[in-house]
Amino acid sequence: MTAPPVPTQIKSDLRLQITDVLTSVFQERATKAATYGETVEHHWALAEQSVLGGKLVRPLLLMQTYDALRKHSLEREGDYATALSIASAVELLHCSFLMHDDVIDGDLTRRGRPNLIGTLLAEFEANPENQAAPSAPPGKYGASRGLHWARTGGILIGDLMLASAHQAFARAPLPRNTHLRLLDLLEHTITESIAGELLDVGLSNAIITPDIATVLAMSTHKTATYTFEFPLRAAAILAASDAALERTLTLAGRHLGLAYQLQDDLLSTFGDPNQHGKDPFSDLREGKQTALISRARQTTEWERIEELFGKPDLSMQEGARLREMLVTCGSQGFVQNLVDDQIAKFHGLLVHTDSEVPADVQRVLLDLAQQLEGRKS
Amino acid sequence: MTAPPVPTQIKSDLRLQITDVLTSVFQERATKAATYGETVEHHWALAEQSVLGGKLVRPLLLMQTYDALRKHSLEREGDYATALSIASAVELLHCSFLMHDDVIDGDLTRRGRPNLIGTLLAEFEANPENQAAPSAPPGKYGASRGLHWARTGGILIGDLMLASAHQAFARAPLPRNTHLRLLDLLEHTITESIAGELLDVGLSNAIITPDIATVLAMSTHKTATYTFEFPLRAAAILAASDAALERTLTLAGRHLGLAYQLQDDLLSTFGDPNQHGKDPFSDLREGKQTALISRARQTTEWERIEELFGKPDLSMQEGARLREMLVTCGSQGFVQNLVDDQIAKFHGLLVHTDSEVPADVQRVLLDLAQQLEGRKS
Repeated sequence: MTAPPVPTQIKSDLRLQITDVLTSVFQERATKAATYGETVEHHWALAEQSVLGGKLVRPLLLMQTYDALRKHSLEREGDYATALSIASAVELLHCSFLMHDDVIDGDLTRRGRPNLIGTLLAEFEANPENQAAPSAPPGKYGASRGLHWARTGGILIGDLMLASAHQAFARAPLPRNTHLRLLDLLEHTITESIAGELLDVGLSNAIITPDIATVLAMSTHKTATYTFEFPLRAAAILAASDAALERTLTLAGRHLGLAYQLQDDLLSTFGDPNQHGKDPFSDLREGKQTALISRARQTTEWERIEELFGKPDLSMQEGARLREMLVTCGSQGFVQNLVDDQIAKFHGLLVHTDSEVPADVQRVLLDLAQQLEGRKS
Repeated sequence: MTAPPVPTQIKSDLRLQITDVLTSVFQERATKAATYGETVEHHWALAEQSVLGGKLVRPLLLMQTYDALRKHSLEREGDYATALSIASAVELLHCSFLMHDDVIDGDLTRRGRPNLIGTLLAEFEANPENQAAPSAPPGKYGASRGLHWARTGGILIGDLMLASAHQAFARAPLPRNTHLRLLDLLEHTITESIAGELLDVGLSNAIITPDIATVLAMSTHKTATYTFEFPLRAAAILAASDAALERTLTLAGRHLGLAYQLQDDLLSTFGDPNQHGKDPFSDLREGKQTALISRARQTTEWERIEELFGKPDLSMQEGARLREMLVTCGSQGFVQNLVDDQIAKFHGLLVHTDSEVPADVQRVLLDLAQQLEGRKS
């Protein structure tokens, strides 16, 4: 349990390799996009920017795990390149989910900067020709012309990224059985993530009852599955690991993934905005149904919390008060316990399957758990 | 040139086979969807309904062409099943494009009936619990809670269909080179369709200048490519045809595809609403930039047309007047000439490459051209 963390040098080399693959995916497409004119070319360039701006958490985890696993299995030529391509596709899938989430949530920023939608909107508004264009009806979309245009870009570029991710999986030159196993995993991940997003929006719109079980299921499906379970299982499949090890990695991924999502909820509300780059009260203002809120709903404080929760014009003072009530009613502690519990279950899993999980893989997983335990953003 | 049309019996058998494959794709998913609760299960059921309600133009064309081509090539066992699966995936891709188009355009009906978005909205509004739900903020989406919920369903189910289409292509058990050729075609088709949709929305929002060349390029990219070029080329690849024949089919598909799209514009404005099932003035009310309008813009009638074009509350009388002006200014005739020209080019292509295109394939293509020539909806 005291395995040293994965050396920083390995991570930065991997990061460069993944970035190279992603860059080449976009360069190839940029050449084609240019044949459809400036508008299309510009959208593709914005798509590339938004993909290359990420932390690459998921592809890095895949490659580290794959690297650790393949030391224990026979390697075929070209396998490493295939793994890199799949890892990059995992990032493309993540970006496509983010893009459509932002369209759905009406978000114009991501990581503290304008996202693709926000950039398109700002560009539209900065162009004087768009101020008084002739015979242009307002969008039926229920939004301004600029916002309609910007969101259209978000939907279509999200589709392009989803398609690109699938292309990498489809082209992977793997033995037939391995390939089908990988495609099954991709399908499972997408089905589950879409289900999770649907539940999330249903909860936020008060269409689905926000009890804790449903909120935790939503968090697992929407984020945990594709953040940790997906890269870990993909690594296992690519390294031709047996089903037992894939199963252990699945469970490890689910525990850490749920911990990660619950931490996200805690950090959005209680974390330092200078570190996570988000509006500190956006979850509370939007009425986001998190485990924090589900728990609060069961306490006597709820009546007072409800008055402020989901208030679109929540002030800084009200936000701070709401935050304080979520501590005093015990919600913060409850969710922190859930996080600790998931991390403890993860450790328990490694102990009980000690013989199965190779030491190098344990090191990657423990490093990841350690990062979660000390997470600030 | 006087080849008899494809017998109705063959088409109806193929239709049943394609419907069977699509049904099984959804049945498999429905079982999984049920594990995520009622909401997810219900969305999947609505997705199935929307896919199974179509005319299957594209998969039928693929299968007829494939059938005609394979008589001239060696067949491997299982090839027919693979072609059926790809044909069904072509329909899934079409449905995913329609779904996201409907979200973008804010459309609640399709083929004269509520689409998935319209159905979700109607269900939301019919539920008394949704009238006064507690602490539910209005969607930041700039839409009502119900519309936000319904469009979210449209985005996510569109994603699911796009993913499902790719899965079928990815799993096709084809020789490596054939598989890569098919995946290249899929990528080309998606890139071009997304570019076309982006141009369409840019034109409608007066962000892109609506000259005839741009409008025709948009029509080709958005619809022509994936409606006829895609199924014809996929059939050629699946039947292991040579590159020259694939090229001829590509050109044939582009000519017929553009004719089909231009006919669509003509029928939406001048056709019989009882036959095409659409609002007869919706294109004019929405200010849709078609070739009809681009041409009118170059005439002296434009000043008078412009007064009514894109008027959101266009009355029946105004619509009829607008329609008349599009005839008298010569726009209707101009576009009808473009249609005839594309069909003539298609016929010319067959004459000049007579030796290359097998007679059975010619029969399928001529049947299709004949349908276009007599098209009423």
